[in-house]
Amino acid sequence: MAGNSYGTLFRISTFGESHGKGIGVVIDGCPPGIKIDEAFIQAELERRKPGQSAITTQRKEPDALEIFSGVFEGQSTGTPISIYIKNTDQRSKDYSHIADKYRPSHADYTYDAKYGVRDYRGGGRSSARETAARVAAGAVAKTILSDHGITVAAYVSQVGHIKTSKSYQELDLAEAENNIVRCADPEVAQTMIDYIKEIKKQGDTVGGMISCVIKGCPAGIGEPVFDKLHAELGKAMLSINAVKGFEYGSGFSSLSMKGSEHNDHFQNDESGKISTTTNFSGGIQGGISNGMDIYCNVAFKPVATIMRDQPSVNKAGDDAVVTGKGRHDPCVVPRAVPIVEAMAALVIVDFLLRQKSIQ
Amino acid sequence: MAGNSYGTLFRISTFGESHGKGIGVVIDGCPPGIKIDEAFIQAELERRKPGQSAITTQRKEPDALEIFSGVFEGQSTGTPISIYIKNTDQRSKDYSHIADKYRPSHADYTYDAKYGVRDYRGGGRSSARETAARVAAGAVAKTILSDHGITVAAYVSQVGHIKTSKSYQELDLAEAENNIVRCADPEVAQTMIDYIKEIKKQGDTVGGMISCVIKGCPAGIGEPVFDKLHAELGKAMLSINAVKGFEYGSGFSSLSMKGSEHNDHFQNDESGKISTTTNFSGGIQGGISNGMDIYCNVAFKPVATIMRDQPSVNKAGDDAVVTGKGRHDPCVVPRAVPIVEAMAALVIVDFLLRQKSIQ
Amino acid sequence: MAGNSYGTLFRISTFGESHGKGIGVVIDGCPPGIKIDEAFIQAELERRKPGQSAITTQRKEPDALEIFSGVFEGQSTGTPISIYIKNTDQRSKDYSHIADKYRPSHADYTYDAKYGVRDYRGGGRSSARETAARVAAGAVAKTILSDHGITVAAYVSQVGHIKTSKSYQELDLAEAENNIVRCADPEVAQTMIDYIKEIKKQGDTVGGMISCVIKGCPAGIGEPVFDKLHAELGKAMLSINAVKGFEYGSGFSSLSMKGSEHNDHFQNDESGKISTTTNFSGGIQGGISNGMDIYCNVAFKPVATIMRDQPSVNKAGDDAVVTGKGRHDPCVVPRAVPIVEAMAALVIVDFLLRQKSIQ
Amino acid sequence: MAGNSYGTLFRISTFGESHGKGIGVVIDGCPPGIKIDEAFIQAELERRKPGQSAITTQRKEPDALEIFSGVFEGQSTGTPISIYIKNTDQRSKDYSHIADKYRPSHADYTYDAKYGVRDYRGGGRSSARETAARVAAGAVAKTILSDHGITVAAYVSQVGHIKTSKSYQELDLAEAENNIVRCADPEVAQTMIDYIKEIKKQGDTVGGMISCVIKGCPAGIGEPVFDKLHAELGKAMLSINAVKGFEYGSGFSSLSMKGSEHNDHFQNDESGKISTTTNFSGGIQGGISNGMDIYCNVAFKPVATIMRDQPSVNKAGDDAVVTGKGRHDPCVVPRAVPIVEAMAALVIVDFLLRQKSIQ
Repeated sequence: MAGNSYGTLFRISTFGESHGKGIGVVIDGCPPGIKIDEAFIQAELERRKPGQSAITTQRKEPDALEIFSGVFEGQSTGTPISIYIKNTDQRSKDYSHIADKYRPSHADYTYDAKYGVRDYRGGGRSSARETAARVAAGAVAKTILSDHGITVAAYVSQVGHIKTSKSYQELDLAEAENNIVRCADPEVAQTMIDYIKEIKKQGDTVGGMISCVIKGCPAGIGEPVFDKLHAELGKAMLSINAVKGFEYGSGFSSLSMKGSEHNDHFQNDESGKISTTTNFSGGIQGGISNGMDIYCNVAFKPVATIMRDQPSVNKAGDDAVVTGKGRHDPCVVPRAVPIVEAMAALVIVDFLLRQKSIQ
Repeated sequence: MAGNSYGTLFRISTFGESHGKGIGVVIDGCPPGIKIDEAFIQAELERRKPGQSAITTQRKEPDALEIFSGVFEGQSTGTPISIYIKNTDQRSKDYSHIADKYRPSHADYTYDAKYGVRDYRGGGRSSARETAARVAAGAVAKTILSDHGITVAAYVSQVGHIKTSKSYQELDLAEAENNIVRCADPEVAQTMIDYIKEIKKQGDTVGGMISCVIKGCPAGIGEPVFDKLHAELGKAMLSINAVKGFEYGSGFSSLSMKGSEHNDHFQNDESGKISTTTNFSGGIQGGISNGMDIYCNVAFKPVATIMRDQPSVNKAGDDAVVTGKGRHDPCVVPRAVPIVEAMAALVIVDFLLRQKSIQ
Repeated sequence: MAGNSYGTLFRISTFGESHGKGIGVVIDGCPPGIKIDEAFIQAELERRKPGQSAITTQRKEPDALEIFSGVFEGQSTGTPISIYIKNTDQRSKDYSHIADKYRPSHADYTYDAKYGVRDYRGGGRSSARETAARVAAGAVAKTILSDHGITVAAYVSQVGHIKTSKSYQELDLAEAENNIVRCADPEVAQTMIDYIKEIKKQGDTVGGMISCVIKGCPAGIGEPVFDKLHAELGKAMLSINAVKGFEYGSGFSSLSMKGSEHNDHFQNDESGKISTTTNFSGGIQGGISNGMDIYCNVAFKPVATIMRDQPSVNKAGDDAVVTGKGRHDPCVVPRAVPIVEAMAALVIVDFLLRQKSIQ
Repeated sequence: MAGNSYGTLFRISTFGESHGKGIGVVIDGCPPGIKIDEAFIQAELERRKPGQSAITTQRKEPDALEIFSGVFEGQSTGTPISIYIKNTDQRSKDYSHIADKYRPSHADYTYDAKYGVRDYRGGGRSSARETAARVAAGAVAKTILSDHGITVAAYVSQVGHIKTSKSYQELDLAEAENNIVRCADPEVAQTMIDYIKEIKKQGDTVGGMISCVIKGCPAGIGEPVFDKLHAELGKAMLSINAVKGFEYGSGFSSLSMKGSEHNDHFQNDESGKISTTTNFSGGIQGGISNGMDIYCNVAFKPVATIMRDQPSVNKAGDDAVVTGKGRHDPCVVPRAVPIVEAMAALVIVDFLLRQKSIQ
């Protein structure tokens, strides 16, 4: 149990290195009778895939999935679903130059400090390639959520200093899939794209923000103390490579608000459903969903790999220069949108199953 | 496993309601031979205790701890340490007026939605009183960290719109204990205190931020994928009542930075130790500590209980007015400082033990 | 997580030493709305209590329980239920003579080998006193099972070489509570009692067997691979002090059977329910219940404490004589019947909740 | 978390069905720097492989393993090790005749009761084929144990009514690999083989017993309460297909012993090591190893698949005849020896890592 699994009842375990034979995921605890649509899972993988547009890395990986187990006649059987993605474009030679050097703000040094040994090729296990396995599992989770009338949608809300000024309520979130930066605000998307292209030309990288909205979640899911819904959501998001911050509902902006402004008042819908007039709570109160939209922001740092020479040290502790080589993303957020959605879906499905167990 | 436990190897389970007989914690997995100093644990509880100053709730609870098990002749034995704190100032009558009403932005409605039944007295299990159990367990964790040369220090860095402009490096963190708001910047502390008093007079509440710094953590702890050090730190902080956001290292400010600015370059100390010239990484790379200071910010919303009438609904769904009664904190952050420290200590100790298991 | 917890969803954590302040249990994951009847829990504790008859230890412990949390107006609330039992008859002086000596076939030496430190008073954490906490939690589990029409009944089927020749189907299991040895076969009970009295007179002890029958368990509970229903049942029973063996259904007698004799044939009841004509499977096939009675046998070794001098060594490794002192049971099985039932109930409840989560 | 994982720190998750694409295992928590010898893992798989001798099923499966991840330059890296075994000899047609029928004493009915859907081909997930994944993981565990000077050896001690009269101390356990029934007593082996051949001719099957001995385990491993060393060992063994009983040390024979006979007296070896003069405790006291040999017996029922017609019912509840078809083992124990060893190794390695975490 070295941290490669996530979830209590709907539990995923990922494996694989960037330049090994392949990567994959085992899902234990998927209820039986769920439709497992390979084409849908593959489509989700395409959204995360490198080489998909002019503003992502040009590395080509088909990311073709294979399901090894747990599915019979198109349905989950309740046994472990294992999904495998073979590595194809490995080019291990590319990485020999960093076998002994510690790339700045990568995990090279810390892996060595932890394990004493390291598969240095393409970052090995620390590569964001691991997240493809999450996206595959997330697609299964999304299918279950869909059966419960729950949707998860994420979009890029900021790239560098460029951000949409609109709240998610003012946006058509489906717009995010209509532009290559996956910004739901079409007026800002092109500016973001141009900026990323500019950054790419500089051989540099830039950070960004992804916002995520979960609609249709019933009231009553989440656990009240350590496994609060937003605490798990935060952990899930912070476990994605390059994430530096998480906030939900009013988030950091609540700092300067007064209770009298911030409190969400309950009302009774005409429909007989209890809702709140405002939603600073972000759909979660006391760690448990209240039936309103759940929404959060996830901050991604600029990618550490830049096309420039950088001073560093090698394994022996001697000074060394890390040169910029390889094919990397100038900004991670366009490809991270499906990852954020996948993690959100995994969190919600797990809590749904946990709640079922006490009902 | 309904979310009342935290930790993998150093695992705490808390129990108890605000107005039941008492609250407590069971620590399973504490190594043997640790000095268990009741006076130190009690001193930590005093830092969290209500009624400690003019800017906290005036509720009086002695919070006197009793150790039931796991300690023999002043040392941990390796068996579960259970710590109990009797409830004394219960005044259950105070809460009869909210038995059927849903207080805005509290957990009343969501507990009912989840469980169908609820100990409404003082918020029951959702009360921040539960965090006393965490502080007690955190004191044991701090003792272990201290044996490893690791320190954890938190302080208030913002109250409402008032914040210190200094980074933690520019502050003497020990100053935080010299003023009742627990701000490490003495020049700002009084302004914060005055502001909280003003807010209190209005019967209102206000949010705030706590910053936390962990020094002396060796490189190599944390797990690389889902249980990244900062992901667990984030979950731990987000599990504290009223927390709405978490960031570590450069956090949300990394959004608008370029990789060339944000990367931390490795260097070799004269001492032969590898360090980084800057620390935007916040001491964590790839989810694993790199030996630099670990630091993070935790955002707290304004307390939901205000001394005003607020519109709401009752259990039957009818309109109801929630009146402001009882004794509550105008701002939660001064008392939350030891809670943030406790959670940080619990996270680090757990990762230390996990790392030992593979060494 | 040092092994003091049991269960996945209905999870109990016990704490406390034989001669510390008290012992207890925290139940996390009890569904809300379960009637919590203190008198019933206390009655179960009485069945395990020392001093209850002429063939048990004469040690007097009232074992009066106190519920600290998780119950409101007589019902579980879904939050942790903590139950505490104060130690009263501690007589720590009795144990000073074994502070440095290793009692044969006790856990004195192994605790020292594991922890380097040990609360030697009355066996500390290794004392069977810990099982009182299990019985208390088991009483809550039994209540839930009862709501599902499931019953758990155990009885003594062998003491030393004296055993009942009848299968559980031939016995009225309720008879077990009508004699002090808790044998369901009244014709054998007195012989067992006489034998234990004889053994006691010799200052010696003797082993025994407890049989346990679970009726009314629906088909479909248990998990198919590592957490097979009988594997968990086995672990749960083997975790009880002094247990040396476990078998279910045909058990060890299946060794010399042929498949053609041993296979249980399915049939369709008049009622439309599928059952089997025989039940060598013990109600479990492939680790999952099939709706038939679940039954198993649990073997207990003779109690290690005898009223005789025995050669041993002390902590320094020098020869030492352990003298027989104190008040102990000549045979553990009469008091272990409620413990076996409690563990069985805990196993079944946990699987029921796990099954609910995927339905 | 549906029971497809085992272990706390050295945690394995298996996946795959008998007649799907393949089966496999993910090992999470393997320490870094362990030599991973594919040839050794493959050799262990050969010991479990069908078709290996005249007394096993004649089904041919190459069981060729492939390592997907976690190994770099022949060593474990600390990241998940995934091992995959492709299914080759699937012949799904063979199983169409049981798609709707419930084979006696198989898991067909219980899987349907649990999941409502079932991959009926070859037993799907309930097939003993799953144990190949355990053997692969067990080979890695054995390598770690070997580095600690710990050995695990199992052998067949009984087939039907034929058993060796010798204790493990009187046998050369290495002899087990010199005959196809894997009995360590060469004088009995041939009788067992002849008996199995006879049973096979009858189209019938027979049960058997495997004894397992762990040597070199240091004192102090195992956890004291629920996760007692022998409780985990019992669970691990009972989780193997067809196992009906488990005993360790004196086991069921302790029933009729007196404490004065059964107690193991401590002595001080000339070497300064504390040992016991007898070992009825089976190397475990209070759930913790005492440094003596750990030994246990595992009872296997006769295989349920027989070459005869048997009455049963189908999914609709109508009477149906299950005809004996396919290629199956007349007695499971010869091939189960490496499985028992694998489970024992997995249990011990996990406890070793757990113990390291508190030292």
